[in-house]
Amino acid sequence: MPDGISVAEYLFRRLREAGLNAVHGVPGDYNLRLLDYVVPAGLEWIGNCNELNAGYAADGYARIKGIGAIVTTFGVGELSAINAIAGAYAEMAPVVHIVGTPNQTDQANGAKLHHSLCRGMPDDFKMFAEMYEKVTVAQENLTDVSAAAAQIDRAIRECFFQSRPVYIRVPMDMVDAIIPGTPLARALDLTPAPSDPIVEDEVCNIIVDRIKNASNPFILVDAGTSRYGLSSQADELIKATGFPTATTPFGKGIVDETLSNFHGIYGTVGPNTYTSYVDSCDLIINIGPAHSNVNTYYFATVPRPEVTVAIDRNAIHIGNRVWNVSPQNVLRAVLDYLKENALGHLAPYPDLPDLCLALKYLPPVKSDSKLTQDIFWLRMSTFFHSGDIILTETGTASTGGRDFVLPKNTTLINSSIWLSIGYMLAATQGAALAQRHIARFNGPLSNGRTILFEGDGSFQMTAQELSTIIRQKLDVIIFIINNNGYTIERLIHGPQEPYNDVASWRYLEAPSFFGAKKSDTSYPVFTARAGTWAELDGILGRDELQTGKGLRIVELMMDVMDSNDTLRLMLEMYKSKE
Amino acid sequence: MPDGISVAEYLFRRLREAGLNAVHGVPGDYNLRLLDYVVPAGLEWIGNCNELNAGYAADGYARIKGIGAIVTTFGVGELSAINAIAGAYAEMAPVVHIVGTPNQTDQANGAKLHHSLCRGMPDDFKMFAEMYEKVTVAQENLTDVSAAAAQIDRAIRECFFQSRPVYIRVPMDMVDAIIPGTPLARALDLTPAPSDPIVEDEVCNIIVDRIKNASNPFILVDAGTSRYGLSSQADELIKATGFPTATTPFGKGIVDETLSNFHGIYGTVGPNTYTSYVDSCDLIINIGPAHSNVNTYYFATVPRPEVTVAIDRNAIHIGNRVWNVSPQNVLRAVLDYLKENALGHLAPYPDLPDLCLALKYLPPVKSDSKLTQDIFWLRMSTFFHSGDIILTETGTASTGGRDFVLPKNTTLINSSIWLSIGYMLAATQGAALAQRHIARFNGPLSNGRTILFEGDGSFQMTAQELSTIIRQKLDVIIFIINNNGYTIERLIHGPQEPYNDVASWRYLEAPSFFGAKKSDTSYPVFTARAGTWAELDGILGRDELQTGKGLRIVELMMDVMDSNDTLRLMLEMYKSKE
Repeated sequence: MPDGISVAEYLFRRLREAGLNAVHGVPGDYNLRLLDYVVPAGLEWIGNCNELNAGYAADGYARIKGIGAIVTTFGVGELSAINAIAGAYAEMAPVVHIVGTPNQTDQANGAKLHHSLCRGMPDDFKMFAEMYEKVTVAQENLTDVSAAAAQIDRAIRECFFQSRPVYIRVPMDMVDAIIPGTPLARALDLTPAPSDPIVEDEVCNIIVDRIKNASNPFILVDAGTSRYGLSSQADELIKATGFPTATTPFGKGIVDETLSNFHGIYGTVGPNTYTSYVDSCDLIINIGPAHSNVNTYYFATVPRPEVTVAIDRNAIHIGNRVWNVSPQNVLRAVLDYLKENALGHLAPYPDLPDLCLALKYLPPVKSDSKLTQDIFWLRMSTFFHSGDIILTETGTASTGGRDFVLPKNTTLINSSIWLSIGYMLAATQGAALAQRHIARFNGPLSNGRTILFEGDGSFQMTAQELSTIIRQKLDVIIFIINNNGYTIERLIHGPQEPYNDVASWRYLEAPSFFGAKKSDTSYPVFTARAGTWAELDGILGRDELQTGKGLRIVELMMDVMDSNDTLRLMLEMYKSKE
Repeated sequence: MPDGISVAEYLFRRLREAGLNAVHGVPGDYNLRLLDYVVPAGLEWIGNCNELNAGYAADGYARIKGIGAIVTTFGVGELSAINAIAGAYAEMAPVVHIVGTPNQTDQANGAKLHHSLCRGMPDDFKMFAEMYEKVTVAQENLTDVSAAAAQIDRAIRECFFQSRPVYIRVPMDMVDAIIPGTPLARALDLTPAPSDPIVEDEVCNIIVDRIKNASNPFILVDAGTSRYGLSSQADELIKATGFPTATTPFGKGIVDETLSNFHGIYGTVGPNTYTSYVDSCDLIINIGPAHSNVNTYYFATVPRPEVTVAIDRNAIHIGNRVWNVSPQNVLRAVLDYLKENALGHLAPYPDLPDLCLALKYLPPVKSDSKLTQDIFWLRMSTFFHSGDIILTETGTASTGGRDFVLPKNTTLINSSIWLSIGYMLAATQGAALAQRHIARFNGPLSNGRTILFEGDGSFQMTAQELSTIIRQKLDVIIFIINNNGYTIERLIHGPQEPYNDVASWRYLEAPSFFGAKKSDTSYPVFTARAGTWAELDGILGRDELQTGKGLRIVELMMDVMDSNDTLRLMLEMYKSKE
């Protein structure tokens, strides 16, 4: 272990230790020296086309790998990325945002430097950090060699435990500053906050009691389940209880959808509407709730507190009581009880949608008919296999993806709180890279693919990140829905208004424009366009698409106003609430 | 005049009155109803690909047209644009940012709505506005029908007078709210702040006295000159005094460069280094100073206060005294005096660079030699003509453009404070539109063109805005410098580091990818690539490029480390200061 180590080396080594394998970002003169330390610390540098995209990519990476990082320059760079970081806060993605700032003397003097507002006051160098206080859970400014190591450790710890972004400023003159290397001798402290075993017992007993006595139980899995590290326990609970289970839109893809007691996304409109059963429930175990309007059908599916056991990050709520305990420990105890004491079957099991049947008896299509979203999404389910990461961009794709029936061990990324369109393409870059890194560093993910579904309007927001996908030779499949504009906005307001149109791009020329090389056999490119079911089936059946490597883009021609029923009905409901 | 008028109609009519002809932005569900009022108010709607680009475009539009506007949605939209708005603040561009927000009841209740952080508190709806307080000069939230009209007028007035961005929030339920239409009967009050004629006289006399007694005088024109409406008075002063005149980098293009007493950009490195004369000056009239490090060769060209008359927005500084007066009124009085009292010539006129000669005797090039930036920029001067708007993106282009010798009545847009790369392509969209609108609504600009010089790294940041240029059929000429990355960063640090590389795009395929139609004769597309002087001369001589309409892209192949001398020397100096 070195006696002395530079601040930058310490930072990147700790990030590597926390599970990071790549840093996203954009160079700028205030961060160049920082970047010199990325590769020597065993991390890849992924230069994105701009900072917003870099932030999105780091977020996508974090959702798969458990941690992501972005480096930007002061002012222009960090402000360009702030929307991505706010999104990471809202949707609980653990992203470390590192900002290279001017040297401390210039900051203290309020020097009129580029990338500042140049008002000649020290406040010019604090104002962006003040903005970041609102959208990150920890902020550190590394100005003190005696404190820097602890500051870095604290920030990474908060990022990890709160599963939300943190913000670290490194003044240029601190990058090379030497700090004691001794803290590296100990692993980064990721011990969870203490939890009282007596309280854990008490809550466990209450939950077990509720489970034993429930006649109409229900498990509702939400996004916090994966954020709080509860995914496998949730799976076990679903199997051990046999209770009817559903997810919210945001929770989809976290638990095993092939179980016979899994009944899709529970909603109040669309295919999986079984409100009367849920209304009759005397127990709802709601794991990792995230009650945004979009995730709850405008709050209609928020479970009634009086029958609900809500499992939160560091607390469990039952009725109107709250216990601040480790949910992992409590769930472990509940599962241990269930292992020893079989519950027996629910009799009679309620009449709820059978997803396997839905998949088995797909509605027939006429092969020369145009693609329509009412059945497109369910039909696409047969394309997926175990290990896939599937991303559905906000818009018709996100709501469409609610119809998917997913194989085991797939991951779905959608946005159900922040909904910043353009996010998903850059997040796909990050997710595909994370998938590669997991295969390389943590063992293979059963040959999974990264598959994006995105509309044309969203694609245009961040299109250049396709070039990063190409440059990094990432294996992705992209379905671009070409329906000439912001269809989700048209369904809300102004169906005929030109402001909902977008320019007509030639999407299939993207790989060539963004630099893919036909001569590069290590990175094949496949493009195709489908307007009918026969065309789509022809494309989906091709080996280059199914199992091939490289970049695969399929342009889906769909009607301007087409969406699945869920979206249409949901938006009508939303509008009535405004 | 209508008795009652909706808030949105009032807002857009007032903006039209202030000189706006187009609103930039991106639709989102919280702003869709607002957008319904854009076209009926006589404004064009320009839907950009994303909000950052929309902000940049509105800024470019504002720099030409005197006012610009952007509409975004709450949260995701406004945060994506905040870097552009901060840039408009730093560089003094009058942009009105209008944000469509959720309805007031939801805000007051802290509803967990999409595009918020969903923490369930009213603060979720204030936090982004608090960020905007830092980067705008006025903020209004239109929540009160009795106050809305005055709030709108006040915001536009501040935008106009401070030449900086303002921020207006319109909750969804206020868009259609009816307010009295009577304020529209009176024109928007754009009367300047009062200025005391006695004080004006006093300052005028001091300045006249200084002018009469100066033996080594100098006029230094900076960016504030155009921002404070002093451009034509500055031109008159230069002619009336015959004083040696220069501009800062940021002030370039504001005054007539063809006058014999104009001597280019005054700098401490590069071609126009005449420090010894400036050091000897007993009078420096510094109009509209903006003393950022980049604009002052790291503060080396900031005039000595003891010999300086500094003309600011609402004040004149002489030595260490300040008078709060209208600079227009004082300059008018000084010019009136000079009209009546000829100054006579300076004898002897100092020995300063003669730009006309530099242009007449261009350094020779070998026709099959590679393009080099040492002479490229000066040589390009012969391509420009009166009426042109020329934009030079931050990087080698911005510093290169310091070598231009510009014809009369040209406008140069560069960035000398904020320096956010990617800005310039989107600003080109805004500037080209403003040029068209000036020709249409204010009388023709002598057939001027919009011409952008931009590096590859910058182009990649905001490339999709080329599709907005195509969609709006804007006439632009774009020179893309293909030098495989961030050359300006390489010159600062890490010349060989991969983090300064960018992906290799096929830039000349851009028009096709972004949707230009070969069949559209109303919007021709011309593309070409030049690597040698002969190739460049051949391209520059072609009619389609020189005088043609439509989109014209020239890819310039240049060396990875090539820049002009000014940039290289300047960066060496900067590095020594860090």
